Amino acid sequence: MLATHPASTDLDQEVLVRAIESLVECAQACTTCADACLSEDMVADLRKCIRSNLDCADSCSTAARILSRSTGYDADVTRAHLEAVIVACRRCGDACEQHASMHAHCRICADACRKCEFACRELLALVR
Amino acid sequence: MLATHPASTDLDQEVLVRAIESLVECAQACTTCADACLSEDMVADLRKCIRSNLDCADSCSTAARILSRSTGYDADVTRAHLEAVIVACRRCGDACEQHASMHAHCRICADACRKCEFACRELLALVR
Amino acid sequence: MLATHPASTDLDQEVLVRAIESLVECAQACTTCADACLSEDMVADLRKCIRSNLDCADSCSTAARILSRSTGYDADVTRAHLEAVIVACRRCGDACEQHASMHAHCRICADACRKCEFACRELLALVR
Amino acid sequence: MLATHPASTDLDQEVLVRAIESLVECAQACTTCADACLSEDMVADLRKCIRSNLDCADSCSTAARILSRSTGYDADVTRAHLEAVIVACRRCGDACEQHASMHAHCRICADACRKCEFACRELLALVR
Repeated sequence: MLATHPASTDLDQEVLVRAIESLVECAQACTTCADACLSEDMVADLRKCIRSNLDCADSCSTAARILSRSTGYDADVTRAHLEAVIVACRRCGDACEQHASMHAHCRICADACRKCEFACRELLALVR
Repeated sequence: MLATHPASTDLDQEVLVRAIESLVECAQACTTCADACLSEDMVADLRKCIRSNLDCADSCSTAARILSRSTGYDADVTRAHLEAVIVACRRCGDACEQHASMHAHCRICADACRKCEFACRELLALVR
Repeated sequence: MLATHPASTDLDQEVLVRAIESLVECAQACTTCADACLSEDMVADLRKCIRSNLDCADSCSTAARILSRSTGYDADVTRAHLEAVIVACRRCGDACEQHASMHAHCRICADACRKCEFACRELLALVR
Repeated sequence: MLATHPASTDLDQEVLVRAIESLVECAQACTTCADACLSEDMVADLRKCIRSNLDCADSCSTAARILSRSTGYDADVTRAHLEAVIVACRRCGDACEQHASMHAHCRICADACRKCEFACRELLALVR
């Protein structure tokens, strides 16, 4: 899809696409994990995890939208939102990891957060 | 991911997953198409298409989130949002199709809208 | 703001503005109520309420965005999303109302949902 | 609403509420301005403004949601998203200001962006 876009940024397209796809997948994993946590018997122990999931889903969705736009590209806007989503993914990954052995949805979500954080760091290194 | 969820709905999981995935892909296609249209020389002829893209991206994102939740499932909420997103996809598909021969991003986006509309209709038929 | 828009729909501007404002306030109330419920000791009894809050926040945000756009107005898209958000507000208002006597945030949120449902029904009656 | 929340952060509630309200208003102004720009005869000259509007609307919506949550408060997540939305508001305010003399919606939106940037900077100074 990005290849059909009339505008383009200097960013490596492969790294950019990997970041967008990781963000979309992570947003989806976090939305589902928040709801799965909410249904667990031990929901009271998962409050922090649910909150991190909700923040991370919102942050990933916004970052994916901003990265999907090339018109009037602004490196500062891109950089600031990559930095923000990296923090959200890091903290959500940490929160989910603590419950990964008990809840498969937390394990899968932690993996999505780590992968997304990595893909965003890779892209961030290219944003000047 | 849904298979690891402690709650579950009566909905066929395969049809549900297909709908969620189509919604996520369609939201992404619409966000990118809106921005690609904005960069086209003939942007003035693509206003309606851009507007439909923005509506459809928002509607698909919301429907994907609602469908990803199983806790306290409510068939009426599910049905109403499937019906809404089906209208958004139909209209956006129509708008993009008119420019499909000139703009590859509109052709790809029209396909994503049609596929999403189909997947949501398939799921809607199962919601009682 | 709408008065400065070059395009305009046939919709009564006062009713339209009231609907948009109610949607924005309701989205905000639902996001806060979901988080407040999550912090309550009795979080396990508030699962359904939290889920309805999250759905309603997403639905209101999307409806507010769609109603804020006048370019290439489409009555069918407007109607379908008003109908969807009315269902979301109805169900979230019902869920919050059950806890209104115990939790002030649920009482305030139920009021926001009822007000929003009313404003959207008022606008829906004008969409042909 | 925040006063009814069982959890609370150390943040000054007045400054926090001002930031959330400014974010919600700015998101709304940006969504409307993007659509108004799209309907202008000179839409081709407003591409950059529309793109900034869309980014800023998404960024403000996400920041408003994150700030509205107190459960499991994380200062780093708060700080990173305040920093990101400040950049988005700054750039959108700059883009809209260039068209403020010609388009009243751009003038109103630029004001909303400046006010929001100010409110978020004020809150950011309190986040440790």
